Order: sequence, then C-alpha cells, then structure tokens
Amino acid sequence: MSSEHVLDKVSNQINRIIPANAGVTAIEFEGPEVAIYSKNISVLIDSEGLLSQIARTIRKRVVIRSDPAVRLPIDKVLEKLKKILHDKVIIGDIEFDKNMGEVIIYVDKPNKLTRKQDDMINTITKETLWRPKFFRIPPIKSNVIKSVRNVLFSDSAARKEALLRIGKMVHRETLLEEPIIRITSLGGYLEVGRTATLVQTGDANILVDCGVSVGSSQASKMLPRFDLPEFELLNLDAVVISHSHLDHCGFLPFLFKYGYEGPVFVTDPTLNLMTMLQIDYLDIAEKEGKLVPYSKNDIRKSTLHAITIKYGEVTDIAPGVKLTFHNAGHILGSGIVHLHIGNGKHNLAFAHDFKFANSRLLDRAVHKFPRLETIVMEATYGNPQDMTPKRQDSEDQIAMLIKKALARKGKVLIPVLAVGRAQELQLVIEHLIRTKQIPEVPVYVDGMVKEATAITTNHPEFLSRQLRELIFEKNHNPFLASFWHEISVKEEREQLLEGEPCIIMATSGMLVGGPSVYYFNKLAEDEKNMIIFVSYQGKGTLGRKVEEGTESIIVKNEQNKSVELVVNMEVHRISGFTGHSDRGELMEFAKRLSPRPKKFLIMHGEMSKCETLAKSIGKSVKRESLAPPIGTTTRLY
Amino acid sequence: MSSEHVLDKVSNQINRIIPANAGVTAIEFEGPEVAIYSKNISVLIDSEGLLSQIARTIRKRVVIRSDPAVRLPIDKVLEKLKKILHDKVIIGDIEFDKNMGEVIIYVDKPNKLTRKQDDMINTITKETLWRPKFFRIPPIKSNVIKSVRNVLFSDSAARKEALLRIGKMVHRETLLEEPIIRITSLGGYLEVGRTATLVQTGDANILVDCGVSVGSSQASKMLPRFDLPEFELLNLDAVVISHSHLDHCGFLPFLFKYGYEGPVFVTDPTLNLMTMLQIDYLDIAEKEGKLVPYSKNDIRKSTLHAITIKYGEVTDIAPGVKLTFHNAGHILGSGIVHLHIGNGKHNLAFAHDFKFANSRLLDRAVHKFPRLETIVMEATYGNPQDMTPKRQDSEDQIAMLIKKALARKGKVLIPVLAVGRAQELQLVIEHLIRTKQIPEVPVYVDGMVKEATAITTNHPEFLSRQLRELIFEKNHNPFLASFWHEISVKEEREQLLEGEPCIIMATSGMLVGGPSVYYFNKLAEDEKNMIIFVSYQGKGTLGRKVEEGTESIIVKNEQNKSVELVVNMEVHRISGFTGHSDRGELMEFAKRLSPRPKKFLIMHGEMSKCETLAKSIGKSVKRESLAPPIGTTTRLY
Ligand SMILES: [Zn+2]
Ligand SMILES: [Zn+2]
Repeated sequence: MSSEHVLDKVSNQINRIIPANAGVTAIEFEGPEVAIYSKNISVLIDSEGLLSQIARTIRKRVVIRSDPAVRLPIDKVLEKLKKILHDKVIIGDIEFDKNMGEVIIYVDKPNKLTRKQDDMINTITKETLWRPKFFRIPPIKSNVIKSVRNVLFSDSAARKEALLRIGKMVHRETLLEEPIIRITSLGGYLEVGRTATLVQTGDANILVDCGVSVGSSQASKMLPRFDLPEFELLNLDAVVISHSHLDHCGFLPFLFKYGYEGPVFVTDPTLNLMTMLQIDYLDIAEKEGKLVPYSKNDIRKSTLHAITIKYGEVTDIAPGVKLTFHNAGHILGSGIVHLHIGNGKHNLAFAHDFKFANSRLLDRAVHKFPRLETIVMEATYGNPQDMTPKRQDSEDQIAMLIKKALARKGKVLIPVLAVGRAQELQLVIEHLIRTKQIPEVPVYVDGMVKEATAITTNHPEFLSRQLRELIFEKNHNPFLASFWHEISVKEEREQLLEGEPCIIMATSGMLVGGPSVYYFNKLAEDEKNMIIFVSYQGKGTLGRKVEEGTESIIVKNEQNKSVELVVNMEVHRISGFTGHSDRGELMEFAKRLSPRPKKFLIMHGEMSKCETLAKSIGKSVKRESLAPPIGTTTRLY
Repeated sequence: MSSEHVLDKVSNQINRIIPANAGVTAIEFEGPEVAIYSKNISVLIDSEGLLSQIARTIRKRVVIRSDPAVRLPIDKVLEKLKKILHDKVIIGDIEFDKNMGEVIIYVDKPNKLTRKQDDMINTITKETLWRPKFFRIPPIKSNVIKSVRNVLFSDSAARKEALLRIGKMVHRETLLEEPIIRITSLGGYLEVGRTATLVQTGDANILVDCGVSVGSSQASKMLPRFDLPEFELLNLDAVVISHSHLDHCGFLPFLFKYGYEGPVFVTDPTLNLMTMLQIDYLDIAEKEGKLVPYSKNDIRKSTLHAITIKYGEVTDIAPGVKLTFHNAGHILGSGIVHLHIGNGKHNLAFAHDFKFANSRLLDRAVHKFPRLETIVMEATYGNPQDMTPKRQDSEDQIAMLIKKALARKGKVLIPVLAVGRAQELQLVIEHLIRTKQIPEVPVYVDGMVKEATAITTNHPEFLSRQLRELIFEKNHNPFLASFWHEISVKEEREQLLEGEPCIIMATSGMLVGGPSVYYFNKLAEDEKNMIIFVSYQGKGTLGRKVEEGTESIIVKNEQNKSVELVVNMEVHRISGFTGHSDRGELMEFAKRLSPRPKKFLIMHGEMSKCETLAKSIGKSVKRESLAPPIGTTTRLY
C-alpha cells in the first residue's frame, strides 16, 4: 500500500472520530508524525482524551496545528506570550516558523512549562493559534546550535518539504508477510572507523551509522563498503546515527551528495555535535589538501532531513521498523540504537560505543530492553588485559599531579578531544577545585572544546542524574564556574603563558594541529610544567612521541623555521577517563543484558580484540557470539 | 577493460606468433575459447607446438577452424570421411554445423580416434577443412540427446550468436585489485530443495545451482530467494549446475525466461539428463494444473547457452573465475563444483550431492583438490543415526528377497527414481543374474527410467572405472543384457502381468504417478508378489503408506471409480543403494579432504541434520564449521 492509500485510511479514521466543529482543513504526514490542521483548535485541545484516542486508533503519533488563515498576527502573538509567560519564566528570543505554524520560544526553564500535562503548550496554542516549542536559553552561546536551528526554522519551506517527503517514506505500508531480516557489515567490523551496518527487511533498508576512517586516504579503507551489492543508495529508507563521533557519522553528508533524500534519526545533541565535527572535518581536509568527500551544503542537507528523538521515545522510521534510542553513556547524546522490526518479529540493538559505568557527565549505559534477540556491540577494549584503572584512582592521581605542578609554579597542559572526555575532565577539575583537593587556579579552555562544552550546556536533560540534580535542584552548573576562561585569540594565549600557574585544556588530543600544539611548544622546555594525556595517542603522532619519552623534537617556530625543542616538562598518562567500556564492563554488560539476546555480534575493535571478546562472551553467556568481517550478511529472522 | 579490448590484445599476441601463410581471417571469443579462422589451416596444424604456444601466451583455450570460403563441399567431405575412417570405426550419422565449420560424426568408438594426439581430428581437418567432432553411436537411442543436439547443431546460427555473447562475458577483464569474495545462500540451506548459492567477487556474479522445491507450491518456499538484494538477474555472469536433479537445476529455465543470456556450465550427461527432467517437470505441472513457471522454449534457451566441460578440465567462466568439475559419485555426470577465484585468492568447492563410496555405476567422489579454502557440503544424512547398511549386505538382501518371490512364482516390483538409483539397481540385478545369485527372468523397465538409462549408455566415459573396463575391455555392457525389456504401451503391460515371474522397475519411486502405480494396483492383492522400496518415501505419498504397512487403500480403477485395494503383497525396504553419503561417509570426506579447508559450510539437509553435522565436523577437524540459514552472506576473502 502506498503512503497515499495509508493517508486516505488514516484520514478516514480521524474524520470519523473528530468533531465536525473542529474545522479540520488538512491531514498530512510530517516526518514520523501525523499533523492535523484545524480552524478551531480549541475543540481538539478541550476534548478530553480525543488526541490520545486518535493516536491509539491510527497507531501513529499526532500533532495538531491551527490553519494558517486563523492564526493571530505576529505582533499580537508577542503581546500574548509576554502576558502568559512573564511571571513564570525569563523569555529570551522568539522565532516564528510560518510553514509549520510554530513559535519557538527561548526561556530559562522550559521544563517548567512542559512538565504538567502540556498545560502552557495548550494555553498558548488556544490563545494565539500558533503551536509553541520551548527551548532553553543557552547558558553558553553555541554558534553551531544557532546555525543548525537556522537550517531547521528559517529555511522552513525546505524543511516542510523534507518532512512531507519523509512522512511518505515512513508511512508506506509493509508488503511482505514473511520478511527476511538481515544485517550486512559495511564498515567498522574487525576494525575501528567507518562504522556502518545495513539492516534489510525486504520492506525497508536502514543504515545504522555512516562513519569515516579519518586516518585513511584510500577509498576502499576510508568509507563504508557501499560497493557491496546489497547497498543501493536510492533504495535507502532511513539512516540512524548512534552518536556524533566521525567514525559513526563522518560520511553521512556524502549520502545526500549522491541523492539520498530520506530521514536521519538522531538525538538533539548528536545533531548539533555531528554538524560541528563534520564542518571541522571538511575544514581540516581542505587545509591539509586531502580528499574532500562532500561540501558544507551536503551537511546542510543532512540537517534539513534530521528527525530528532529523545531517549526512550518509540518512533516509526520505516515501514515495519520502530526505533528507540537508549542512553549509551559514551558521549553527550550517544544512543544504543534499538530496532523493533516486523511487528515484533525481531528486536535488534546496536551498542556501538558505550560506557557501562557511571561517569560524572553521563549515566551508565542502559542494559534492559523490552525485547532483544540480537545485540551488536563494540570491542574497543576487548582484550583481557584491557582493564582501565578505577575511576577514583584516576581522579586521585590527576589531583596529585596537578597539585604537584602548581606547587612548583608550573602550568599543566591537558590535550583533549573536543567531544566527550573534555567535558568529563572539566567536571573532574571543577569537582577537585570545589572540594579543595587542588587549589583554585584559572583553567583555560581553547579550541573546538569550547563549542562542544557550549553544546553540552544546552542539553542538560541528556546529562547524568547527579549532574542534573546539581544544575536543576542545587542551581550549580559546573561549566559556569568562575575559574573557567575561554581563549580565542593569540593575545590571550600569550598573556596566559606569561601569567600565574594554571591549567590549560586544548584540542587536539594527540597534539596534531589545534592550539594544544601551540601550548606544548611554549611549555615543553620548562621542567616546572606538566603535560597529562587522558586519551589514546595514535601511532606517529606528536602526542605518541612525547608520551613515549622523546627527549627532543624538531618543531616549526612562529617564523616557520625548524628548531629543536627539548622536552623538559613532566609527562604523564591517565587512562581512567575513557568513554568506552573496558573489558570488565564489556563482559558485565553482555552478562547482564536483559533479556539475554540469542546472538552477539562483536565489532568496533582491532581484529584480535573482536575475536577474543566474541569467544569470551560466547563461553560466558552460552549464546552464539561472532566477530564477522566486513561484507558479511547475517540472517536474523 | 571491456572484452573488445581484451580481444584486441589477444589478437595482437596471436598475430605476432602465427605464420603469415596461415591466412588468418578472424579471431573470435566463442564461449570460453578463442577461435582462430584460417584459410590455410594445415600451416597451423603442422607447426609443431604452435597451438600450445598460443594457448600459453594468451592463457586461454584455443580452437582452430578453416575459413568458410575454403571448406570442401559437403558431398566431397562425406566421400573423404568414408575413405579415412572406414577401416577404423563404424560410422553412423554425420551432421554439418555450417556456422562453426564443424562436422559431427557418430562412430562406434570415438575414443579410438581422439586418443593419440588428436591425430584423426587433424587429418580430417586438413583434408576437408571442416573440424570433426566425434560422438558415440548410442547403444540405446535417446530422444532427449537427439533433441539437445538438435538445438546445439541444427539451430547453429543462434548457438553461434550465444557463444559469441558468452565469449564477451567470460573474457571481460577484472577491474578490482582487492575483491571482496562472498557467497550468499539463496536456497537449499537448512532444508532440501531449491539449491542455489550466489558467488560474488565484485567483478563477477556466479550462481551455483538453480533448483526448485518440487513439493512446494508457495513461491517463497518453492524457488530460490531471488528477491534478496544481492541477486540481480541481469548482472549474472555465469550459472554452474552441479547435477541434473530438479532440486539443483529445476529453476534454471526461469532465469532465461526473465532475460538471462549468459552461459550455463554443465557436464555433458547433466545437460542431457536435466533437459529430460525439466521437460518432465513441466509436463507433470501442466497435467496437475500446478504453477508452470516457464515454458519449453525457456528450456531450449538454457540448452542453447550450455557450455559442457569434462571432469578435471579447468575453464574460465567469468572474469577472474575458473571452474573445474570433479566426479561427485552421486549420479551420472554429477560434479563437485570447484571455483578458483581472483587468481588464487580463494578456492571454493561445492560438494552438493556426493557419494564418498564406490558404487557399481560410479566411482567414489573426489576428495583431493589442488587448492581449497572453503567447502560447501551436503547433510542429507547428517545425523549420527543416519548410517546406511553395508553395500554387500544390501545386495545380499535384495538377492535373497528376489529369489524368494520368484521361487513362489511371484512378481517383484521395484519403484525407482528415473535418474541415479535406477541405473545402479540395473547394474546390481544384472550382476546378480550374471553371477547366478538369482535366476534369469525377464526384467521390465517402464517409465522415464528407460530414457535415463539410454542417456547413461551414451556417456560411458562418466561411469566407474570397473564398469568402463567391463564395457570397453571386456566388451560387456550390462545395460544391453538380453533379459532387459523396455515397456511403453498398455498392451505390453497387460501381457507381462499375465506372464511368468519377473522383475519390474518403474517410475515414480514413491508411487505418485507414473507406471509404478499401475503395476502396484495390479500386483498388490496377490500375496505371492513383492514390492521393494530402494529410496526415501516422502510424507503423504502412497509409497510411504505402503512402506508403513497399511492393510488396504482406496484407489481409482480403470473406470476411474474408487475401489478398495487390499495390500497382500510382501513389502520391503532396502536403504543401502543411496546416491548420498551416509553420516560415516560425510565425516570421512570432511576429515580426508585435501588440503583441509579453513571453512566448512553445511547445507542440503533438514535443519537439525545440518546443525548436528556442522558441529561434529567442527569438533573433528578443528576448523570453522557452520550451518547458515538461507539469506546469509559469508565473506570468504
Ligand atoms: Zn564514539
Ligand atoms: Zn541430487
């Protein structure tokens, strides 16, 4: 059945339920939802239980909007909003999305307005005939979020067109009674990088993740194996992105470059962070003269087709396929991708990158699912010896080291990856200062990590329970502490280097480009200073050389002349802050998964780690456990 | 590189080697071979080692033909042939294939003419400027062989066109340096029926077997899963058929119905037997009002695209893929399909149906290969309890039973499948009579088994060493013994039923249609008679009911009225004549395979048998051993 037929059927069902005086003027599929346009929206809002009755009947999510002809003029709306909201929240910017009939209102505490039964949403809808959406006034401004919202709201004709197109794709009826459900490994199996898995049901083709191997330049190693015969770009129905690291989303815009026009399902933070990282990827590729596989306009197209969903929200994403994101504990917005296929015929989850332990930033990954037959899971730390130190030991160690360096009037440089560990380290340092385990000194943040932190502060609802309590109940936001200083220009950098003892967090994490290299060059020769690595240092990087204890290196000075730099600063490495599960956590997750899946597919790790972990899990949980190579198609049902 | 470029390159290489006075007028790809047309073919034939030098240089098989303009007129050729051959062999029919410049000569002993270094072939080619092909004068005439040869030779313009098209497909150059070699199970995995496996290398797509599940009527169970996304009919480069049973070739003509125009690689007996069985399949489907998935014209098209190759002959079948058939010991012409892919990157063999033990008809399956990394093998008798009695015990038992029935003046009915066991049983009975273990009585053969036996006698070079010795050295052909009688018409049937004690072999093997049902109805009520089942009786068949000891059944009499038939005849079942390996032989084959493959894929058996056998082999040979379901794609390289 085509989506037109489905829409006819749904419209008939709705019209049978809905009172005539609601004045329904249109019913449309907008993305995964059904939008009902009405001339008298109060009728819909006031009829107790009407909307949930409709949703139950048509088995789809419903939104109501008033017909454009009856909406209040914008100046009147602004007046009304002030009157309704001024004693409840602080109001920031207000934007109008004319196509969708939505008014986007930035307030200090959006939760306050949506918490009790959509009260304010209904009140404003009735009074203005515009549908309100509440967003948080960002505590730190994010340029990325601004540009993403710009694509979604200002360019709303294109957005509406995309949503209608996606609506038709999602709501096509299934045809097959006996689907064959299969997954094909396109990338990130027996390796780390270019993660991509194709899920095929006969009725729908879904791509889970679309990563790039940033280190590779050869096409056959850099991008997922889209040349395999199962993959047909133009037959793709949906893309799901687990999280924003480039090895999971770096190739997404490429799909749009080559004609994909379907939905991209993500969480809100993932949408923002991945846009940031994709733009950065292009910038670096251009600067280094490397292959630039797509353009910024393709990133814009991805954003235009993004459908953001919350943790725990069940969403139709393609005929016969429902998606739920569950917290993965890896980075902000990271999700375990749970697919419910063919009316319960098979339940499949991708725990691509996950941390099965609490961190300061995020709660431990979810391990209980309503149903689960197959799990695909990572093996980054899959070897028995891949055990990371205890969290508390790592915090004690970094406290001791920082104290030592500061005591001798040194400066501490912590090179960080922009997304994930950087924010975790910020929380650790804030905690150490607040609890007086280390002295309060200025902590400078430089490079893309600033933007990532800004985005983090925009999505507090995705943070750990402990951190949310701190922010919402105790009104203490660690990212806003007074000792944080953002550094952007050369003069600030020079100034801080001449100043007092301090801590500097800067990208990149491996000392390959970015301000961390600048600081390293300036700080390396003074033995009072200290560098602390908190993440893996890739082979051949400057970070790896320093970590391994090189005594001197050749660097370019500011006049671009090669000079010798003697490394006198103290060098340390702390491994306990990783966002990946270590071997113990991987095994624990596999054992405690509930319900216990029938099949474990192990990937996202070096070959030997995948194979070792698959074997160990197989033995331990007594279920089929495999580490398939790229190009394997596994029948699930 | 397209095949045109390859042909240019090959032509240049040939022209550089070949003497100018050979008068080469054309060089063409004809199927897997390179055909050189010359005005002075004697030059090519007389230049010692020239042809093998060419073959070595271009690394392809070469045939030489004389240019049509210089060939001798047909009447002159006939004169010459008689002169050259009359004292060497008995000459039968002679046919001319004008397009190919070939003269097909039926003689009593073709081996005599081809054995010593192609002597007669060269002599006749030089004298007549036609290229001779020698075929055996069939000891028993076969209508099927006649009609197959009719397609291949009389319709030679279409055949030549097909060969040129196939030549272009086979000789396309490979493009990929790093192919991903994968196989996808389309049918016959965890089940018996519709066997089909897709082999994909990136450069080539090859289908190994294309069977039908004769018992099913539902399309999703009856035909291979051609709806899987890997399978693209129009991208198929070659089809290989392991043997002629319908569960391995019954759906082949369907491919041609839907536009396939590529080659079908088979052995000579398989081509003849499969044509017979496909026609019979259509006839029965039509008669029973079942789905008729293709027409006789589609069978004709398959034949037109058939390339027959001998056991042990290495043939290019697609870019980067070489095929060799090895004796499988299962039925006449059955092959283990060995594929050598990507210049040695991977070697893969399909032991679909095979018998790892000598029978009277055939030698034991081959278990040594030049190279082998993956084996796909059957599990029809995969359970530990699936042990068949010893061969000698079965022969003793059938001798004893036949003797007993004949002694009391009874008639013995042996229902048989047309191809395989029937011919084996004929050899057993002939042996028992010849060695006087049972009395010499008339043995009547009725139904399609007659044609299958005729085809068998046309291909003595595919028979067991012992049998070939008997036929060629001792000049004794067991199929021509005087006690054999073919039965075709009703009068003959009535006559034999009224006559003396005898043995009757008739199709079908399960008493579902065919003359065996007629004989059963006539013989069942007399307790002097005996029925001996030698093959598996499917659930719900009349054969199964009788085997299980039913006392009476309702049958239609000749006036089509239902009457009760009391089964008084003696009922026996002997299982030792199967053409499949029993459990012991399967394990023995797996252990003795040389070289030992890295991967075993077990299929062609009920689910539990495949899984049990896979486990046992894995434990025993310490290699990966899996029983994948349909729809699995396994990466081999
Ligand atoms: Zn990640
Ligand atoms: Zn067979």
